[in-house]
Amino acid sequence: MVVVMEERATEEQIERVVAQLVTMGYDVHRSTGATRTVIGAVGGARMGDPRLVELLEGVQEVVRITEPFKLASRTFKQDDTVFLCGDVRIGGDEVIVMAGPCSAESEQQVQATAAAVKRAGAKVLRGGAFKPRSSPYSFQGLGEEGLRLLRAAADQHGLPLVTEVMDASQIEVVVQYADVLQVGARNMQNFTLLRELGKTRKPILLKRGISATIEEWLLSSEYVLAGGNMHVILCERGIRTFESYTRNTLDISAIPVVKKLSHLPVFVDPSHGTGRRDKVAPMARAAVAAGADGLLIEVHCDPDHALSDGAQSMFPSQFERLMAELRIIAPAIGRSICVEPVARRGWGR
Amino acid sequence: MVVVMEERATEEQIERVVAQLVTMGYDVHRSTGATRTVIGAVGGARMGDPRLVELLEGVQEVVRITEPFKLASRTFKQDDTVFLCGDVRIGGDEVIVMAGPCSAESEQQVQATAAAVKRAGAKVLRGGAFKPRSSPYSFQGLGEEGLRLLRAAADQHGLPLVTEVMDASQIEVVVQYADVLQVGARNMQNFTLLRELGKTRKPILLKRGISATIEEWLLSSEYVLAGGNMHVILCERGIRTFESYTRNTLDISAIPVVKKLSHLPVFVDPSHGTGRRDKVAPMARAAVAAGADGLLIEVHCDPDHALSDGAQSMFPSQFERLMAELRIIAPAIGRSICVEPVARRGWGR
Amino acid sequence: MVVVMEERATEEQIERVVAQLVTMGYDVHRSTGATRTVIGAVGGARMGDPRLVELLEGVQEVVRITEPFKLASRTFKQDDTVFLCGDVRIGGDEVIVMAGPCSAESEQQVQATAAAVKRAGAKVLRGGAFKPRSSPYSFQGLGEEGLRLLRAAADQHGLPLVTEVMDASQIEVVVQYADVLQVGARNMQNFTLLRELGKTRKPILLKRGISATIEEWLLSSEYVLAGGNMHVILCERGIRTFESYTRNTLDISAIPVVKKLSHLPVFVDPSHGTGRRDKVAPMARAAVAAGADGLLIEVHCDPDHALSDGAQSMFPSQFERLMAELRIIAPAIGRSICVEPVARRGWGR
Amino acid sequence: MVVVMEERATEEQIERVVAQLVTMGYDVHRSTGATRTVIGAVGGARMGDPRLVELLEGVQEVVRITEPFKLASRTFKQDDTVFLCGDVRIGGDEVIVMAGPCSAESEQQVQATAAAVKRAGAKVLRGGAFKPRSSPYSFQGLGEEGLRLLRAAADQHGLPLVTEVMDASQIEVVVQYADVLQVGARNMQNFTLLRELGKTRKPILLKRGISATIEEWLLSSEYVLAGGNMHVILCERGIRTFESYTRNTLDISAIPVVKKLSHLPVFVDPSHGTGRRDKVAPMARAAVAAGADGLLIEVHCDPDHALSDGAQSMFPSQFERLMAELRIIAPAIGRSICVEPVARRGWGR
Repeated sequence: MVVVMEERATEEQIERVVAQLVTMGYDVHRSTGATRTVIGAVGGARMGDPRLVELLEGVQEVVRITEPFKLASRTFKQDDTVFLCGDVRIGGDEVIVMAGPCSAESEQQVQATAAAVKRAGAKVLRGGAFKPRSSPYSFQGLGEEGLRLLRAAADQHGLPLVTEVMDASQIEVVVQYADVLQVGARNMQNFTLLRELGKTRKPILLKRGISATIEEWLLSSEYVLAGGNMHVILCERGIRTFESYTRNTLDISAIPVVKKLSHLPVFVDPSHGTGRRDKVAPMARAAVAAGADGLLIEVHCDPDHALSDGAQSMFPSQFERLMAELRIIAPAIGRSICVEPVARRGWGR
Repeated sequence: MVVVMEERATEEQIERVVAQLVTMGYDVHRSTGATRTVIGAVGGARMGDPRLVELLEGVQEVVRITEPFKLASRTFKQDDTVFLCGDVRIGGDEVIVMAGPCSAESEQQVQATAAAVKRAGAKVLRGGAFKPRSSPYSFQGLGEEGLRLLRAAADQHGLPLVTEVMDASQIEVVVQYADVLQVGARNMQNFTLLRELGKTRKPILLKRGISATIEEWLLSSEYVLAGGNMHVILCERGIRTFESYTRNTLDISAIPVVKKLSHLPVFVDPSHGTGRRDKVAPMARAAVAAGADGLLIEVHCDPDHALSDGAQSMFPSQFERLMAELRIIAPAIGRSICVEPVARRGWGR
Repeated sequence: MVVVMEERATEEQIERVVAQLVTMGYDVHRSTGATRTVIGAVGGARMGDPRLVELLEGVQEVVRITEPFKLASRTFKQDDTVFLCGDVRIGGDEVIVMAGPCSAESEQQVQATAAAVKRAGAKVLRGGAFKPRSSPYSFQGLGEEGLRLLRAAADQHGLPLVTEVMDASQIEVVVQYADVLQVGARNMQNFTLLRELGKTRKPILLKRGISATIEEWLLSSEYVLAGGNMHVILCERGIRTFESYTRNTLDISAIPVVKKLSHLPVFVDPSHGTGRRDKVAPMARAAVAAGADGLLIEVHCDPDHALSDGAQSMFPSQFERLMAELRIIAPAIGRSICVEPVARRGWGR
Repeated sequence: MVVVMEERATEEQIERVVAQLVTMGYDVHRSTGATRTVIGAVGGARMGDPRLVELLEGVQEVVRITEPFKLASRTFKQDDTVFLCGDVRIGGDEVIVMAGPCSAESEQQVQATAAAVKRAGAKVLRGGAFKPRSSPYSFQGLGEEGLRLLRAAADQHGLPLVTEVMDASQIEVVVQYADVLQVGARNMQNFTLLRELGKTRKPILLKRGISATIEEWLLSSEYVLAGGNMHVILCERGIRTFESYTRNTLDISAIPVVKKLSHLPVFVDPSHGTGRRDKVAPMARAAVAAGADGLLIEVHCDPDHALSDGAQSMFPSQFERLMAELRIIAPAIGRSICVEPVARRGWGR
């Protein structure tokens, strides 16, 4: 913490600040310039509340100088975190695309969509069984029956499965079906849930809250990491701004910012980030061009009749075309998007 | 829903939109003007996704025309909701002040603070036992021991108690100690929690999420109301904006807006809304002047040594002075802030 | 400026930062703690770009430590700025209300409105002749003819006049009619205009831009002050946020924040801040309760037929009632709202 | 405009609304459903203030149904606007890169930077002579001398020149030197300036204000278009959000949104949009991947000694590398980035 004193601060006021900092456990370095005194406080209690110093007389400003996150930081671990999820390598050179329906609705719908995304090159199946909805009157998901349908389709097509867990009480059941556990944007600061997920040994995909700063997002990942689960994927999905033409503003610049601050892989969800099918492809391309490690995309075999979020789900043919575009873009930054053997043999089989 | 067609929309496109709306269960009214056609869709499925229509060819814009919240709306219930919490009347002419420490820390601290706020005119004791913290390394509250301390102090001073419940799994224990259950801003869309709270019969104080629109806030209250618990207090506590001089921007204008849209009582928390002790009094005065039904204020018998949020906790003497100012302001809008018998007899007893 | 080095920064990197700071003209103080080095840079060039240091290798974060504004700051001038505008004292104990129509439309309209606001206790007449409008197809004001009408009404009722100047080229004409020159929110960073206004000797009412930080707002006032014109009134009128139920979010907390940072008087415009007549009174009361030095309110003798902003203009009777409410609130913070002799004798004359 | 009546609205209230709409010049269509009445108002005065209807008794909500912009809209002109600037084709298949220093500082600096950007494939030279700065104490540009230096370098290297005009009074001089006139973000709603620019016959590059909605941005372009100057380039450069790790949040999703609403070309300025050199390349790549028609990039032959914005200016070598990456990305969406003959012959000359 650095404390900047007012120009007219008295010696007595300065000493009171120094005393407070010492009480809080800091090493204190005092630096007196021509016009004002600056006090540096290093080491000490990581979480001392800077506002307590800010309120002392003669203090102009207090600035925190260490990132409050630790295990998520590049200071703690310099190399990129790379890990396997099934045989899919997350965080490596290959850009990983996770795709599938917003919600599982029926066996036929899950199977058809899984087949389509696999064929186009997706490496992980996504799909929801427990759905958080702003309104209590909206469709809330099929629950465990949905998990069963998703697991069957994932197995059938040789894809790992990512699905959302909404509450700590659901972990026990979801963990039996899923390979990656997703935390939704509204739950980014559900600390009870995060703490419990830190005890599991499955990778966690942690979406950024729509009004979460990057710092808060990394602090939330810290709840999982501190529990001993080091396999966290960060997923940007749009922040809330004044602009209302798009549902949210997808913060593409968060990708290079987080890649610099943290060693964790960063994914992007352009489906929720834009809320409209015709904006998904441009933003997916932008995310890969900006350096995202992967994408999470909603695809539905029949979006016009989807029970939730049909408007932002891509048709399989749109998704195929997007994958082809991404294969051109990825090499610009030294990455690849792999093509499945089955796809290489021809999509028309 | 109202669908505005593009100027160059064809008859065929218009008919496709009409057909889609009929499928979604709406009564359709078509209105053809000089330059374009507008299609009104009334009745029908409350939650049809307007984006599905928006994506049809020839459609320029789709506008939702009914508020998605129902039980919280003045359309549903025209009179203000007023209810008793112990012998305290919430939502009536009297502006109710709930005050106390951020967290329960010790018996002495809870008792001293409760005595101070009671003496100054607070009608409900507030205090936290389970604390949601952005960082896993911060103080997380005393848990059930904190609840015991708060209950004892509340009983001692004849005050009802409001305290936070962070997770559905905590309801069972918190409900044994508290008179009002508080849902924190980060949990405003923890739908599992809200649904469970709808089954209890204690009043719920629902804080607005820092990036929640007023509509989303009312929809979250709907989760509680739909469960049969009609005693919800809405509590504004600051929204996130680009301005960083204050921790959040307290949205005072939300008070008259919500009072018009909904029959539920609206409180304001100026302590979290500003994050700094010296800004609490001006914003508390502003809230009452704008028509708030009550306030939630952090007071600590010794803020400089508080384990959490000391920087935004008022000294008892500051709180007393604020209460005196509020007693002048309330009559300007036909309201009062009652004075306790004990206080009227003299604070020096 | 304070430079925080990364934990793993090398001695060579630290020395390069020190050299850069010395080049920029700073006194450098180096402080080595257990885990990292912090470098304080005081004195020196006021406006050195901290980002130039931020990009050096081994640097984690750079923090600016002096406010970039100078003449507007309480560090520069500790006492409140108080000045006369005609015989009206701005910045003193009395809360000053400026009221009148959005735009001058006709002699009858201006005279009738001026009479009404005078009677209710307004001390300054407001009204627009040059109107900035988002769309080129909207009414753009009467121009100099409007100024003549406003001046005549101001003289008739013994009120000083505040009106907007949109461009440096208009100053010469506006200065002949107005007592206070208003800079609109969209022009807050029109530096050519601000610089020219610094050369006039009329008070300037500077509205905050809808997305301006408090720091940028004070820096803009600095353009006027640096020209030698020390009579600047700051006017909060709402900031842009994600919430869309109100046109803007009136930032009431800016009042106490600016009163602490600066000696300049702070006014509030609740008409533009909310955009709706029925929200003006609650927000005007909140502003006074929070410590505003004055208000700027749109009143129209016949709002339903106003050529601009009728929806946010109060009826004269609503304005009278608001003034009565404000007279109750002001004493809560040791202030008053004066009553005109004519009003004291009875409104019915 | 569509007026949604409250469920309990009376027949009398409905008729009053209809009468008001007729007065405002609309064709009125009334549609009575099971629970409420919806009134459609088409044709009529383009700019009737919907808030005037909103305040009538019994009205729940009023929705505007036509875009307020006209000449900028795809409804008005379906095909993309493409035009020549010198021999450079703006808005066509080729992605156009405009590059150069933030400010002209010296002949040597301008010449060296122009040579470097030309060699790497830039098609237009950018550079500032009049600089808008938040603080009056910052470097404000070389003025006309800067224009002379920029013109000479542009001629020397066969590049058209884009430079900023800050005030209507500067147009006369700037127009003598520049090929494209730039309006800065802070001036996006300087209507006096925009109106004057509508009378020139040079292309206008109109930056989006940091808090401007897309609608306001298009309305500002309308001021230029309405004057008869149809050559407007829209330029996204970041919006203000709560996130502070980046200076602004570059709104990449604005690209596909504006391309759908308007026929005007859309450029992106990743230098101001991020404020940091190491974030410029990822965001430039993202912009092209999302469909931008061009880029505006700050390059400096010696950024560490730049007088303004050095921290966000690229080194020539970084810029060359970025151009190479963009040449890989552009074909993914059927576009190209041309290579200058000189560059094709080898960069090592």
